[in-house]
Amino acid sequence: MELTHFNHAGKARMVDVTVKDETKREAVAEGRIVMKPATLELVKQGALGKGDVLGVAQVAGVMGAKRTWDIIPMCHPLLLTGVNLEFTVDDAGNAIDIRAIVKTTGKTGVEMEALTAVSVAALTIYDMCKAVDKAMTIEYIRLRAKSGGKSGNFVRED
Amino acid sequence: MELTHFNHAGKARMVDVTVKDETKREAVAEGRIVMKPATLELVKQGALGKGDVLGVAQVAGVMGAKRTWDIIPMCHPLLLTGVNLEFTVDDAGNAIDIRAIVKTTGKTGVEMEALTAVSVAALTIYDMCKAVDKAMTIEYIRLRAKSGGKSGNFVRED
Amino acid sequence: MELTHFNHAGKARMVDVTVKDETKREAVAEGRIVMKPATLELVKQGALGKGDVLGVAQVAGVMGAKRTWDIIPMCHPLLLTGVNLEFTVDDAGNAIDIRAIVKTTGKTGVEMEALTAVSVAALTIYDMCKAVDKAMTIEYIRLRAKSGGKSGNFVRED
Amino acid sequence: MELTHFNHAGKARMVDVTVKDETKREAVAEGRIVMKPATLELVKQGALGKGDVLGVAQVAGVMGAKRTWDIIPMCHPLLLTGVNLEFTVDDAGNAIDIRAIVKTTGKTGVEMEALTAVSVAALTIYDMCKAVDKAMTIEYIRLRAKSGGKSGNFVRED
Amino acid sequence: MELTHFNHAGKARMVDVTVKDETKREAVAEGRIVMKPATLELVKQGALGKGDVLGVAQVAGVMGAKRTWDIIPMCHPLLLTGVNLEFTVDDAGNAIDIRAIVKTTGKTGVEMEALTAVSVAALTIYDMCKAVDKAMTIEYIRLRAKSGGKSGNFVRED
Amino acid sequence: MELTHFNHAGKARMVDVTVKDETKREAVAEGRIVMKPATLELVKQGALGKGDVLGVAQVAGVMGAKRTWDIIPMCHPLLLTGVNLEFTVDDAGNAIDIRAIVKTTGKTGVEMEALTAVSVAALTIYDMCKAVDKAMTIEYIRLRAKSGGKSGNFVRED
Repeated sequence: MELTHFNHAGKARMVDVTVKDETKREAVAEGRIVMKPATLELVKQGALGKGDVLGVAQVAGVMGAKRTWDIIPMCHPLLLTGVNLEFTVDDAGNAIDIRAIVKTTGKTGVEMEALTAVSVAALTIYDMCKAVDKAMTIEYIRLRAKSGGKSGNFVRED
Repeated sequence: MELTHFNHAGKARMVDVTVKDETKREAVAEGRIVMKPATLELVKQGALGKGDVLGVAQVAGVMGAKRTWDIIPMCHPLLLTGVNLEFTVDDAGNAIDIRAIVKTTGKTGVEMEALTAVSVAALTIYDMCKAVDKAMTIEYIRLRAKSGGKSGNFVRED
Repeated sequence: MELTHFNHAGKARMVDVTVKDETKREAVAEGRIVMKPATLELVKQGALGKGDVLGVAQVAGVMGAKRTWDIIPMCHPLLLTGVNLEFTVDDAGNAIDIRAIVKTTGKTGVEMEALTAVSVAALTIYDMCKAVDKAMTIEYIRLRAKSGGKSGNFVRED
Repeated sequence: MELTHFNHAGKARMVDVTVKDETKREAVAEGRIVMKPATLELVKQGALGKGDVLGVAQVAGVMGAKRTWDIIPMCHPLLLTGVNLEFTVDDAGNAIDIRAIVKTTGKTGVEMEALTAVSVAALTIYDMCKAVDKAMTIEYIRLRAKSGGKSGNFVRED
Repeated sequence: MELTHFNHAGKARMVDVTVKDETKREAVAEGRIVMKPATLELVKQGALGKGDVLGVAQVAGVMGAKRTWDIIPMCHPLLLTGVNLEFTVDDAGNAIDIRAIVKTTGKTGVEMEALTAVSVAALTIYDMCKAVDKAMTIEYIRLRAKSGGKSGNFVRED
Repeated sequence: MELTHFNHAGKARMVDVTVKDETKREAVAEGRIVMKPATLELVKQGALGKGDVLGVAQVAGVMGAKRTWDIIPMCHPLLLTGVNLEFTVDDAGNAIDIRAIVKTTGKTGVEMEALTAVSVAALTIYDMCKAVDKAMTIEYIRLRAKSGGKSGNFVRED
C-alpha cells in the first residue's frame, strides 16, 4: 500500500491517469457548522428574507467545487457536469448540515470537489455570521458516497 | 444584533470598512483530520522521505490563505504579511492536528484566512491519502484566537 | 491628450501611480438587462422564493468587482473596502436596472471595479435565465459617478 | 417553463448535464462601446502604432472567454476549442462594434463565453481610454447566434 | 509559413482546433537555475530536512502546469492527466536541473504546460533562496520532446 | 545564513513582514528568447501589422506580474503601482531581449514580480511562434537591479 501522489523519488506528482477510461462519476460529501442558538435563528430568518446566508453559501460552494483543481495541489482538472448543495437546519444540534453532490464524466473521481464544496460553504457561513458568533465550529466533513471509476463504489455507513 | 454582510434590502454586500483604521491583526485557527492508524503511519513515513504529505499540505495551506478573498464571496482583499502552518501528529487520536497563524496590517481581520488555510491543508491531506483511506474525517475547525481591530481580542477557551 | 496606458514605444503598460497619494475613492456604475415580460416575471417570482436569480447575480457581482485587476489587463490591484449592488425591476421597460457602488482607499480609482461588477451581474442574470430567453440584451453600462483622487469628481448627468 | 439553474428547493445549482452528448457548439455574441469622436480618433490612431487599444482588448477578451466558468457562478467548465474577436470602427455612430466567436465540443453551449468575451473586451477599451473619456457607454450586448446542442440553433434577427 | 495564433486581420486569436482529434499527448521540458555554491549547499541541506526548497518548487510547478491556459493568453484549456517534475543537482555546474513531464488526452499538445511547469519551479527556487543570493540565473528553458498530435513527434537533440 | 522562507520546523512559510516599513520599491528583470532567424523575421513582421506577437507578450507579462503572489507559493501579495515591459530585437543573436520594470510601495520587494513578468512574456512568445519553431530557448532570466527596502539596493554588473 502506498500513496499514489508521489513519484519514485518520493516527490509529489499529479498521478498519471492518461490510460484510464472516462466514466460517469458522482460523489456526495457532508459536513456541518455548529453555532449559538441565537446565530442559528438569524440564519433561519435570513432564509425568510432579511439576508440569505445560505444562498450565498450555496453559490460559494458551487464555485469552490469548480475551482478544486486550482486549490488542491495534486488534483486533476475535471469538467464537472453537475454541482448541487443542500442545507438542513438541525435545531436540536444548533447546526446547519451541509451536503454537496458533484458529478462528472471523466478519468478521476469527484470526491475532492464534493469535499471542497462543503468546506467552502461552511467557511462562507462562518464569514457571514462571524460578526455575531466567533465560536462557530466546522465539523465532521467526510465523504458520504462515491460511484464510478475503477476503484468502484464507496458508501460510508456511520 | 444583525448580520453585517447584508445591505438594507437584505442582499449580500461586502461590508464597508473604508473608514476603519489599519491595525496589526493576527488570527490563529485550528482543525484536525482523523484517519486509520495505517494511514497515519504512511503520513509519518512520508515525513521521513517517502513522500511528504504534510509538506504539500503546508504549501496548499499558505496558498489557500492568500486566495481567501477570492473563494469566500464577501471577504475583503487583504495584504497578508505572514502565514504559517503547523502540523502535529496525534498518535492516540489517529489524527493530524493543524494550526494556521495569519498576520496582516489592514482594515479587517484575518480570521477567514486562518480558517481557510486550515481547511485547504486538511483537504490536501485527504487528497494525498484518499487512495488508501476514503473514510478520513475533517473535524473541529475553529478560530483559536484573534487580535487587533476594533472588536478587540478573542481567545477560545475550550 | 494621450492614452496613459501606453509607454513611449506605444506598448501597453500598467500606468505608474507610485507617487500618487492614497485617498478615499468611490465609484457608482449602472447598467440594465432587458428581457421578455415572461422572463422578468420568473425573475420576480424568484425573488419570492422559487429561485433567487438576483441573489446569485449579487454574489457574482461582488466577486467580479474583487477580481477586476485580474480580468482587465492594465488595471491596478486595489484593496476594495466596500462593494454593494442594487437591482431594481423596471416593469415598464421589461428590464432589471443594476447599480454597483465600490469603495477603496488607494492610489487609483474604482471605476473599473464598479463597471465590472455591473457587467458580471448582468451576465449572471443572462446565464440564469437563458434557458427561457436567449434574446435578452445587456444595455447602457456606464459610470454614474466617481469621487476621490487627483482628477476630482465626475457625475454623469444624463 | 422554469429556470433550470435552481434545484427543487429553489436554490441555485449547476445544472446536471451528465447525460447530455458532446456536440460541436458555436456561439457568436456582439456588443458596442460608444465614445466621444476624439476618443474614437485616439483608438484609431492606436491601431496605427501609437498604442494598440484594440490589441489589448483582443487579448483580454480571449482570456475572459476562457475564464467564464470561474466568473459566472453556475456556468459549466468547458474546453474551448476556438476564440476569436473582431472589432469594427463605426465612425458614424462614434462606436466600436465588438464581435466574439467561441467554439467547443462539449455538453453545454458557449453563449456565456461569447458574451463574456465581448463584455471583457468592452470593459478593457473603457479602461484604456477612461483617462480621456469617462462618459463612454457599453451598449447592446446580445447573443447573435448559436448552434449545436439539443436546444438547436438560434439566430437573432434584429 | 505563418503564425497560426493570428486571424485574417492579424489580430491574436485562440487557434480553432474544433475538428482535431483527441490523442494522447506528452511533452518534456527542461531548464536550470544556476546559483552560488553556498546557495546550492543550502538547497541540498534542505532536502535533508532543514527546509525543502525543491519540495515547494515541485508543488508550484505542478500547480503552474495546470494553470497554463490562464497565464498564456492564447493557450487552449486542457485536462492534464499527469504532471511530474524532477530536480537534479549539478554540483559541477552549481545548478539545479529541472525537468517536467506533462501528459493529456486532448486536441492540442502540452508543450506550454511543460515549459510553464519548469519556469514556475525555477522562479520558486529563486524566491525561496533570494534572501541569500540575488544573482541566480534561470537558464536554457527548452522543449526536450513531445509526442502525439498531427504534427507528430519532436525530439531536441542538443 | 539561512533560508528565511522556512519556519523553525524546517517547513515552508510566508515570511512574517508585519513590522517592516512600507517603502517605495522597484525591480528590473531581464531575459531573452533565442529562435531561428526565420522565426525572428516573422515576429518582426508581426510588429509591422501581420500579427503582433510582442503586443500579446506585453499584455501577458503585465498580467503575470500582477498574479505573481498566486503562482509563487511563498510570495507576499503586493499592490503593484507600475508594470512595464520592453522588447528589443537582437538580430545578431537571433533573439528577443525582454526587460520588465515593476514598482510598488510595500513591505516586500518586487523582484519576483519582475522575474515572473519576463518569464510569462517569454513563454507567450514561445507559444505564439511554436507552430513554426519548437527549438526556441528561453535564456538568462535574471534580476538586473532592485531598490528600496531594508536590504538596500542591488545592481547586477555582468
